[in-house]
Amino acid sequence: MKLLIGNKNYSSWSMRPWVMLTQFDIPFEEVMVRFDSFAPDSKFKAAIGPLSPVGKVPLLVEDDGFVIWDTLAIAEYVAEKFPDKGLWPRDARRRARARSVCAEMHSGFSALRGAFGMNIEASLPEVGKRVLAGNAAARADLARVIQLWQEALAESGGPFLFGDYSIADAYFTPVVTRLRTYALPVPDDVAAYMARVFAAKGTAAWIRDALEEKEFLQFEEDYRTSRD
Amino acid sequence: MKLLIGNKNYSSWSMRPWVMLTQFDIPFEEVMVRFDSFAPDSKFKAAIGPLSPVGKVPLLVEDDGFVIWDTLAIAEYVAEKFPDKGLWPRDARRRARARSVCAEMHSGFSALRGAFGMNIEASLPEVGKRVLAGNAAARADLARVIQLWQEALAESGGPFLFGDYSIADAYFTPVVTRLRTYALPVPDDVAAYMARVFAAKGTAAWIRDALEEKEFLQFEEDYRTSRD
Repeated sequence: MKLLIGNKNYSSWSMRPWVMLTQFDIPFEEVMVRFDSFAPDSKFKAAIGPLSPVGKVPLLVEDDGFVIWDTLAIAEYVAEKFPDKGLWPRDARRRARARSVCAEMHSGFSALRGAFGMNIEASLPEVGKRVLAGNAAARADLARVIQLWQEALAESGGPFLFGDYSIADAYFTPVVTRLRTYALPVPDDVAAYMARVFAAKGTAAWIRDALEEKEFLQFEEDYRTSRD
Repeated sequence: MKLLIGNKNYSSWSMRPWVMLTQFDIPFEEVMVRFDSFAPDSKFKAAIGPLSPVGKVPLLVEDDGFVIWDTLAIAEYVAEKFPDKGLWPRDARRRARARSVCAEMHSGFSALRGAFGMNIEASLPEVGKRVLAGNAAARADLARVIQLWQEALAESGGPFLFGDYSIADAYFTPVVTRLRTYALPVPDDVAAYMARVFAAKGTAAWIRDALEEKEFLQFEEDYRTSRD
Protein backbone atom coordinates (compact mmCIF):
# COMPACT_ATOMS: atom_id res chain seq x y z
CA MET A 1 0.00 0.00 0.00
CA LYS A 2 1.01 3.58 -0.63
CA LEU A 3 -0.14 6.47 1.50
CA LEU A 4 -0.15 9.86 -0.21
CA ILE A 5 0.26 12.70 2.22
CA GLY A 6 0.96 16.42 2.33
CA ASN A 7 3.58 18.36 4.29
CA LYS A 8 4.07 16.84 7.70
CA ASN A 9 4.25 20.17 9.48
CA TYR A 10 0.86 21.28 8.22
CA SER A 11 -1.28 18.42 6.92
CA SER A 12 -3.42 17.35 9.85
CA TRP A 13 -5.58 14.98 7.81
CA SER A 14 -2.52 13.24 6.42
CA MET A 15 -1.17 12.78 9.91
CA ARG A 16 -4.05 10.60 11.10
CA PRO A 17 -3.63 7.50 8.90
CA TRP A 18 0.19 7.80 8.81
CA VAL A 19 0.38 7.80 12.59
CA MET A 20 -2.12 4.94 12.75
CA LEU A 21 -0.21 2.74 10.28
CA THR A 22 3.10 3.47 11.97
CA GLN A 23 1.78 2.87 15.46
CA PHE A 24 0.37 -0.53 14.46
CA ASP A 25 3.48 -1.63 12.51
CA ILE A 26 1.59 -1.90 9.24
CA PRO A 27 4.00 -1.58 6.33
CA PHE A 28 3.29 1.13 3.76
CA GLU A 29 5.13 3.32 1.34
CA GLU A 30 4.91 7.03 2.04
CA VAL A 31 4.46 9.31 -0.96
CA MET A 32 4.82 12.97 -0.10
CA VAL A 33 2.92 15.36 -2.34
CA ARG A 34 4.21 18.74 -1.25
CA PHE A 35 1.70 21.52 -0.82
CA ASP A 36 2.50 24.32 -3.27
CA SER A 37 -1.01 25.69 -3.35
CA PHE A 38 -4.50 24.28 -3.71
CA ALA A 39 -5.26 26.22 -6.90
CA PRO A 40 -6.53 24.19 -9.88
CA ASP A 41 -3.21 24.70 -11.69
CA SER A 42 -1.01 23.78 -8.71
CA LYS A 43 1.44 20.89 -8.80
CA PHE A 44 -0.43 19.42 -5.85
CA LYS A 45 -3.72 19.28 -7.74
CA ALA A 46 -1.95 17.99 -10.85
CA ALA A 47 -0.54 15.09 -8.83
CA ILE A 48 -3.67 14.27 -6.82
CA GLY A 49 -6.41 15.07 -9.34
CA PRO A 50 -5.97 11.96 -11.50
CA LEU A 51 -6.13 9.74 -8.42
CA SER A 52 -8.98 11.26 -6.46
CA PRO A 53 -12.28 12.88 -7.36
CA VAL A 54 -12.03 15.11 -4.29
CA GLY A 55 -8.45 16.24 -4.93
CA LYS A 56 -7.25 15.96 -1.35
CA VAL A 57 -4.82 13.98 0.76
CA PRO A 58 -4.55 11.53 2.39
CA LEU A 59 -5.09 8.82 -0.19
CA LEU A 60 -4.45 5.14 0.28
CA VAL A 61 -3.46 3.43 -2.96
CA GLU A 62 -3.38 -0.36 -3.20
CA ASP A 63 -0.66 -2.10 -5.22
CA ASP A 64 -2.98 -2.51 -8.21
CA GLY A 65 -4.01 1.14 -8.15
CA PHE A 66 -7.27 0.95 -6.18
CA VAL A 67 -7.67 4.26 -4.37
CA ILE A 68 -9.41 5.00 -1.08
CA TRP A 69 -9.95 8.56 -0.05
CA ASP A 70 -11.00 10.08 3.23
CA THR A 71 -9.36 9.26 6.54
CA LEU A 72 -12.38 7.50 8.02
CA ALA A 73 -12.75 5.17 5.04
CA ILE A 74 -9.00 4.51 5.08
CA ALA A 75 -9.15 3.68 8.78
CA GLU A 76 -12.04 1.24 8.33
CA TYR A 77 -10.39 -0.38 5.32
CA VAL A 78 -7.10 -0.94 7.13
CA ALA A 79 -8.88 -2.15 10.27
CA GLU A 80 -10.67 -4.78 8.18
CA LYS A 81 -7.54 -5.73 6.26
CA PHE A 82 -5.56 -6.32 9.46
CA PRO A 83 -8.16 -7.65 11.89
CA ASP A 84 -5.53 -9.08 14.26
CA LYS A 85 -4.03 -5.66 14.88
CA GLY A 86 -6.98 -4.39 16.88
CA LEU A 87 -7.11 -0.93 15.34
CA TRP A 88 -10.55 -0.40 16.80
CA PRO A 89 -11.34 -1.41 20.39
CA ARG A 90 -12.32 -5.08 20.52
CA ASP A 91 -15.37 -4.47 22.69
CA ALA A 92 -18.39 -3.60 20.53
CA ARG A 93 -19.54 -0.71 22.70
CA ARG A 94 -16.13 0.83 23.09
CA ARG A 95 -15.78 0.47 19.34
CA ALA A 96 -19.11 2.24 18.84
CA ARG A 97 -18.02 5.04 21.13
CA ALA A 98 -14.65 5.31 19.39
CA ARG A 99 -16.44 5.64 16.07
CA SER A 100 -18.77 8.27 17.52
CA VAL A 101 -15.92 10.49 18.56
CA CYS A 102 -14.03 9.99 15.29
CA ALA A 103 -17.15 10.90 13.34
CA GLU A 104 -17.62 13.92 15.60
CA MET A 105 -14.05 15.00 14.87
CA HIS A 106 -14.52 14.31 11.18
CA SER A 107 -17.35 16.78 10.74
CA GLY A 108 -16.89 19.07 13.72
CA PHE A 109 -14.57 21.28 15.73
CA SER A 110 -14.41 23.69 12.82
CA ALA A 111 -13.84 26.76 15.01
CA LEU A 112 -10.90 25.15 16.79
CA ARG A 113 -9.43 23.87 13.54
CA GLY A 114 -9.99 27.18 11.76
CA ALA A 115 -8.43 29.31 14.49
CA PHE A 116 -5.52 27.01 15.30
CA GLY A 117 -4.11 25.49 12.15
CA MET A 118 -1.77 22.56 12.66
CA ASN A 119 1.81 23.85 12.74
CA ILE A 120 3.99 21.36 14.52
CA GLU A 121 7.28 23.25 14.53
CA ALA A 122 5.79 26.54 15.68
CA SER A 123 5.36 27.72 19.24
CA LEU A 124 2.68 30.38 19.47
CA PRO A 125 1.49 30.70 23.05
CA GLU A 126 0.72 34.42 22.79
CA VAL A 127 -1.37 33.84 19.67
CA GLY A 128 -3.19 31.05 21.46
CA LYS A 129 -4.04 33.24 24.41
CA ARG A 130 -5.20 36.18 22.32
CA VAL A 131 -7.18 34.23 19.72
CA LEU A 132 -8.87 32.01 22.27
CA ALA A 133 -9.94 35.06 24.29
CA GLY A 134 -11.71 36.50 21.25
CA ASN A 135 -13.30 33.36 19.85
CA ALA A 136 -16.19 31.88 21.81
CA ALA A 137 -16.76 29.08 19.31
CA ALA A 138 -13.15 27.95 19.59
CA ARG A 139 -13.45 28.02 23.37
CA ALA A 140 -16.56 25.83 23.13
CA ASP A 141 -14.73 23.41 20.85
CA LEU A 142 -11.81 23.25 23.25
CA ALA A 143 -14.15 22.58 26.16
CA ARG A 144 -15.80 19.80 24.21
CA VAL A 145 -12.48 18.15 23.29
CA ILE A 146 -11.43 18.21 26.93
CA GLN A 147 -14.79 16.78 28.03
CA LEU A 148 -14.65 14.08 25.35
CA TRP A 149 -11.14 12.96 26.34
CA GLN A 150 -11.88 13.04 30.06
CA GLU A 151 -15.05 10.98 29.70
CA ALA A 152 -13.40 8.40 27.46
CA LEU A 153 -10.37 8.07 29.74
CA ALA A 154 -12.54 7.83 32.86
CA GLU A 155 -14.68 5.11 31.32
CA SER A 156 -11.83 3.05 29.86
CA GLY A 157 -9.27 3.64 32.58
CA GLY A 158 -6.71 4.68 29.93
CA PRO A 159 -3.89 4.94 29.13
CA PHE A 160 -5.44 5.86 25.77
CA LEU A 161 -8.98 7.02 25.03
CA PHE A 162 -10.51 3.57 24.82
CA GLY A 163 -7.90 1.60 26.73
CA ASP A 164 -5.20 0.43 24.33
CA TYR A 165 -4.13 2.78 21.56
CA SER A 166 -6.79 2.85 18.82
CA ILE A 167 -7.80 4.73 15.70
CA ALA A 168 -9.50 7.27 17.95
CA ASP A 169 -6.16 8.36 19.43
CA ALA A 170 -4.67 8.71 15.96
CA TYR A 171 -7.72 10.73 14.98
CA PHE A 172 -7.21 13.26 17.77
CA THR A 173 -3.42 13.44 17.48
CA PRO A 174 -3.41 16.58 15.29
CA VAL A 175 -5.57 18.27 17.93
CA VAL A 176 -3.04 17.29 20.56
CA THR A 177 -0.31 19.03 18.54
CA ARG A 178 -2.45 22.14 18.12
CA LEU A 179 -3.05 22.40 21.85
CA ARG A 180 0.71 22.35 22.35
CA THR A 181 1.60 24.74 19.50
CA TYR A 182 -0.83 27.36 20.80
CA ALA A 183 -0.37 26.44 24.49
CA LEU A 184 -4.09 26.19 25.05
CA PRO A 185 -5.05 25.62 28.69
CA VAL A 186 -5.94 22.06 29.68
CA PRO A 187 -6.37 20.29 33.01
CA ASP A 188 -3.57 18.07 34.33
CA ASP A 189 -5.19 14.77 33.41
CA VAL A 190 -5.59 15.95 29.82
CA ALA A 191 -1.98 17.15 29.76
CA ALA A 192 -0.96 13.67 30.89
CA TYR A 193 -2.97 12.09 28.07
CA MET A 194 -1.36 14.48 25.59
CA ALA A 195 2.08 13.46 26.86
CA ARG A 196 1.22 9.80 26.24
CA VAL A 197 0.07 10.64 22.71
CA PHE A 198 3.32 12.54 22.04
CA ALA A 199 5.33 9.58 23.35
CA ALA A 200 3.51 7.05 21.15
CA LYS A 201 5.88 5.89 18.43
CA GLY A 202 3.61 6.89 15.52
CA THR A 203 3.33 10.45 16.80
CA ALA A 204 7.01 10.69 17.64
CA ALA A 205 8.06 9.52 14.17
CA TRP A 206 5.76 11.97 12.39
CA ILE A 207 6.90 14.91 14.53
CA ARG A 208 10.56 14.06 13.96
CA ASP A 209 9.95 14.17 10.20
CA ALA A 210 7.89 17.36 10.46
CA LEU A 211 10.69 19.15 12.29
CA GLU A 212 13.13 18.15 9.56
CA GLU A 213 11.03 19.65 6.75
CA LYS A 214 11.99 23.25 7.54
CA GLU A 215 9.60 24.54 4.94
CA PHE A 216 7.52 27.68 5.39
CA LEU A 217 4.22 27.87 3.51
CA GLN A 218 2.71 31.31 3.84
CA PHE A 219 -0.78 30.14 2.84
CA GLU A 220 -0.75 27.74 5.80
CA GLU A 221 0.38 30.44 8.22
CA ASP A 222 -2.19 32.77 9.75
CA TYR A 223 0.12 34.22 12.36
CA ARG A 224 3.69 34.24 11.04
CA THR A 225 5.62 35.59 8.07
CA SER A 226 8.70 33.41 8.56
CA ARG A 227 9.85 30.45 10.61
CA ASP A 228 11.59 32.60 13.21
CA MET B 1 -33.23 -0.13 20.14
CA LYS B 2 -34.68 3.36 20.11
CA LEU B 3 -33.85 5.91 17.45
CA LEU B 4 -34.27 9.53 18.49
CA ILE B 5 -35.00 11.79 15.57
CA GLY B 6 -36.16 15.32 14.76
CA ASN B 7 -38.98 16.51 12.51
CA LYS B 8 -39.25 14.32 9.46
CA ASN B 9 -39.81 17.20 7.09
CA TYR B 10 -36.61 18.93 8.07
CA SER B 11 -34.13 16.66 9.87
CA SER B 12 -31.85 15.33 7.16
CA TRP B 13 -29.42 13.67 9.58
CA SER B 14 -32.28 11.86 11.32
CA MET B 15 -33.52 10.60 7.99
CA ARG B 16 -30.39 8.60 7.19
CA PRO B 17 -30.44 5.94 9.94
CA TRP B 18 -34.26 5.80 10.03
CA VAL B 19 -34.42 5.05 6.32
CA MET B 20 -31.59 2.53 6.66
CA LEU B 21 -33.23 0.63 9.54
CA THR B 22 -36.59 0.61 7.78
CA GLN B 23 -35.16 -0.47 4.45
CA PHE B 24 -33.36 -3.41 6.06
CA ASP B 25 -36.33 -4.51 8.22
CA ILE B 26 -34.45 -3.91 11.44
CA PRO B 27 -36.92 -3.35 14.28
CA PHE B 28 -36.58 -0.16 16.27
CA GLU B 29 -38.69 2.21 18.27
CA GLU B 30 -38.92 5.72 16.89
CA VAL B 31 -38.80 8.57 19.39
CA MET B 32 -39.60 11.93 17.85
CA VAL B 33 -38.03 14.92 19.58
CA ARG B 34 -39.73 17.84 17.90
CA PHE B 35 -37.56 20.77 16.92
CA ASP B 36 -38.72 23.86 18.80
CA SER B 37 -35.39 25.65 18.57
CA PHE B 38 -31.77 24.78 19.17
CA ALA B 39 -31.29 27.35 21.91
CA PRO B 40 -29.80 26.11 25.19
CA ASP B 41 -33.18 26.54 26.92
CA SER B 42 -35.22 24.79 24.19
CA LYS B 43 -37.31 21.70 24.86
CA PHE B 44 -35.23 19.94 22.23
CA LYS B 45 -31.97 20.56 24.06
CA ALA B 46 -33.59 19.67 27.38
CA ALA B 47 -34.61 16.28 25.96
CA ILE B 48 -31.39 15.49 24.10
CA GLY B 49 -28.81 17.08 26.38
CA PRO B 50 -28.89 14.42 29.11
CA LEU B 51 -28.43 11.68 26.50
CA SER B 52 -25.77 13.15 24.25
CA PRO B 53 -22.71 15.31 24.79
CA VAL B 54 -23.19 16.87 21.38
CA GLY B 55 -26.89 17.64 21.83
CA LYS B 56 -28.00 16.56 18.38
CA VAL B 57 -30.15 13.95 16.70
CA PRO B 58 -30.08 11.21 15.57
CA LEU B 59 -29.25 9.12 18.60
CA LEU B 60 -29.44 5.37 18.85
CA VAL B 61 -30.25 4.18 22.36
CA GLU B 62 -29.88 0.53 23.30
CA ASP B 63 -32.37 -1.10 25.66
CA ASP B 64 -30.05 -0.67 28.64
CA GLY B 65 -29.47 3.00 27.88
CA PHE B 66 -26.19 2.85 25.95
CA VAL B 67 -26.19 5.79 23.53
CA ILE B 68 -24.51 6.09 20.15
CA TRP B 69 -24.39 9.44 18.47
CA ASP B 70 -23.50 10.43 14.95
CA THR B 71 -25.01 8.80 11.87
CA LEU B 72 -21.77 7.18 10.72
CA ALA B 73 -21.14 5.52 14.07
CA ILE B 74 -24.79 4.42 14.21
CA ALA B 75 -24.50 2.92 10.73
CA GLU B 76 -21.34 0.99 11.59
CA TYR B 77 -22.81 -0.23 14.88
CA VAL B 78 -25.99 -1.52 13.25
CA ALA B 79 -24.03 -3.07 10.36
CA GLU B 80 -21.96 -5.03 12.89
CA LYS B 81 -24.97 -5.99 15.00
CA PHE B 82 -26.82 -7.40 11.99
CA PRO B 83 -24.05 -8.83 9.81
CA ASP B 84 -26.46 -10.99 7.77
CA LYS B 85 -28.37 -7.96 6.55
CA GLY B 86 -25.57 -6.73 4.31
CA LEU B 87 -25.87 -3.06 5.18
CA TRP B 88 -22.50 -2.40 3.61
CA PRO B 89 -21.55 -3.95 0.26
CA ARG B 90 -20.14 -7.45 0.80
CA ASP B 91 -17.16 -6.88 -1.49
CA ALA B 92 -14.29 -5.26 0.44
CA ARG B 93 -13.48 -2.70 -2.23
CA ARG B 94 -17.05 -1.70 -2.87
CA ARG B 95 -17.40 -1.39 0.87
CA ALA B 96 -14.32 0.84 1.00
CA ARG B 97 -15.72 3.00 -1.77
CA ALA B 98 -19.12 3.18 -0.06
CA ARG B 99 -17.42 4.35 3.11
CA SER B 100 -15.41 6.93 1.16
CA VAL B 101 -18.52 8.56 -0.25
CA CYS B 102 -20.35 8.44 3.08
CA ALA B 103 -17.38 10.09 4.78
CA GLU B 104 -17.27 12.67 2.00
CA MET B 105 -20.96 13.40 2.55
CA HIS B 106 -20.45 13.48 6.29
CA SER B 107 -17.95 16.33 6.24
CA GLY B 108 -18.64 17.92 2.87
CA PHE B 109 -21.21 19.44 0.53
CA SER B 110 -21.69 22.31 2.94
CA ALA B 111 -22.60 24.81 0.22
CA LEU B 112 -25.31 22.56 -1.20
CA ARG B 113 -26.63 21.74 2.24
CA GLY B 114 -26.52 25.36 3.35
CA ALA B 115 -28.30 26.73 0.29
CA PHE B 116 -30.89 23.98 -0.03
CA GLY B 117 -32.14 22.92 3.37
CA MET B 118 -34.12 19.68 3.43
CA ASN B 119 -37.81 20.46 3.17
CA ILE B 120 -39.65 17.45 1.90
CA GLU B 121 -43.14 18.87 1.58
CA ALA B 122 -42.06 22.05 -0.20
CA SER B 123 -41.72 22.58 -3.93
CA LEU B 124 -39.39 25.48 -4.67
CA PRO B 125 -38.21 25.24 -8.27
CA GLU B 126 -37.89 29.03 -8.71
CA VAL B 127 -35.78 29.31 -5.58
CA GLY B 128 -33.62 26.47 -6.83
CA LYS B 129 -33.00 28.14 -10.15
CA ARG B 130 -32.25 31.56 -8.67
CA VAL B 131 -30.07 30.41 -5.76
CA LEU B 132 -28.10 27.97 -7.88
CA ALA B 133 -27.37 30.68 -10.44
CA GLY B 134 -25.83 32.89 -7.75
CA ASN B 135 -23.89 30.28 -5.79
CA ALA B 136 -20.81 28.82 -7.47
CA ALA B 137 -19.92 26.64 -4.49
CA ALA B 138 -23.38 25.04 -4.51
CA ARG B 139 -23.05 24.42 -8.25
CA ALA B 140 -19.69 22.73 -7.62
CA ASP B 141 -21.23 20.56 -4.91
CA LEU B 142 -24.09 19.61 -7.21
CA ALA B 143 -21.65 18.69 -9.97
CA ARG B 144 -19.69 16.54 -7.53
CA VAL B 145 -22.81 14.71 -6.29
CA ILE B 146 -23.80 13.95 -9.86
CA GLN B 147 -20.29 12.75 -10.71
CA LEU B 148 -20.13 10.62 -7.57
CA TRP B 149 -23.45 8.91 -8.29
CA GLN B 150 -22.68 8.38 -11.97
CA GLU B 151 -19.28 6.83 -11.26
CA ALA B 152 -20.63 4.53 -8.57
CA LEU B 153 -23.58 3.41 -10.71
CA ALA B 154 -21.37 2.84 -13.73
CA GLU B 155 -18.92 0.76 -11.74
CA SER B 156 -21.51 -1.32 -9.88
CA GLY B 157 -24.09 -1.59 -12.64
CA GLY B 158 -26.77 -0.38 -10.18
CA PRO B 159 -29.62 -0.32 -9.44
CA PHE B 160 -28.24 1.40 -6.32
CA LEU B 161 -24.89 3.10 -5.86
CA PHE B 162 -22.94 -0.03 -5.01
CA GLY B 163 -25.27 -2.63 -6.50
CA ASP B 164 -27.84 -3.66 -3.91
CA TYR B 165 -29.23 -0.99 -1.60
CA SER B 166 -26.63 -0.07 1.06
CA ILE B 167 -25.89 2.46 3.76
CA ALA B 168 -24.49 4.73 1.04
CA ASP B 169 -27.91 5.11 -0.57
CA ALA B 170 -29.48 5.92 2.78
CA TYR B 171 -26.71 8.44 3.32
CA PHE B 172 -27.50 10.31 0.12
CA THR B 173 -31.29 10.09 0.42
CA PRO B 174 -31.69 13.55 1.98
CA VAL B 175 -29.74 14.98 -0.95
CA VAL B 176 -32.10 13.21 -3.34
CA THR B 177 -35.04 14.95 -1.67
CA ARG B 178 -33.31 18.33 -1.86
CA LEU B 179 -32.71 17.96 -5.57
CA ARG B 180 -36.42 17.34 -6.01
CA THR B 181 -37.64 20.10 -3.67
CA TYR B 182 -35.53 22.71 -5.45
CA ALA B 183 -35.81 21.06 -8.89
CA LEU B 184 -32.09 21.18 -9.43
CA PRO B 185 -31.02 20.07 -12.91
CA VAL B 186 -29.68 16.51 -13.22
CA PRO B 187 -29.00 14.20 -16.18
CA ASP B 188 -31.49 11.47 -17.00
CA ASP B 189 -29.48 8.60 -15.51
CA VAL B 190 -29.28 10.49 -12.22
CA ALA B 191 -33.01 11.24 -12.33
CA ALA B 192 -33.59 7.51 -12.78
CA TYR B 193 -31.44 6.73 -9.74
CA MET B 194 -33.35 9.33 -7.73
CA ALA B 195 -36.61 7.67 -8.75
CA ARG B 196 -35.34 4.34 -7.46
CA VAL B 197 -34.35 5.95 -4.17
CA PHE B 198 -37.81 7.53 -3.81
CA ALA B 199 -39.41 4.15 -4.53
CA ALA B 200 -37.33 2.32 -1.91
CA LYS B 201 -39.56 1.41 0.99
CA GLY B 202 -37.47 3.20 3.63
CA THR B 203 -37.62 6.47 1.71
CA ALA B 204 -41.29 6.09 0.89
CA ALA B 205 -42.24 5.46 4.51
CA TRP B 206 -40.28 8.48 5.79
CA ILE B 207 -41.74 10.79 3.16
CA ARG B 208 -45.29 9.63 3.91
CA ASP B 209 -44.72 10.52 7.57
CA ALA B 210 -43.07 13.84 6.69
CA LEU B 211 -46.05 14.89 4.60
CA GLU B 212 -48.38 14.14 7.49
CA GLU B 213 -46.52 16.38 9.92
CA LYS B 214 -47.89 19.62 8.49
CA GLU B 215 -45.72 21.67 10.77
CA PHE B 216 -44.04 24.89 9.71
CA LEU B 217 -40.81 25.84 11.48
CA GLN B 218 -39.72 29.32 10.51
CA PHE B 219 -36.13 28.78 11.66
CA GLU B 220 -35.82 25.89 9.21
CA GLU B 221 -37.26 27.93 6.34
CA ASP B 222 -34.98 30.24 4.38
CA TYR B 223 -37.42 30.88 1.55
CA ARG B 224 -40.99 30.71 2.89
CA THR B 225 -43.09 32.34 5.56
CA SER B 226 -45.88 29.75 5.53
CA ARG B 227 -46.62 26.32 4.10
CA ASP B 228 -48.63 27.70 1.15
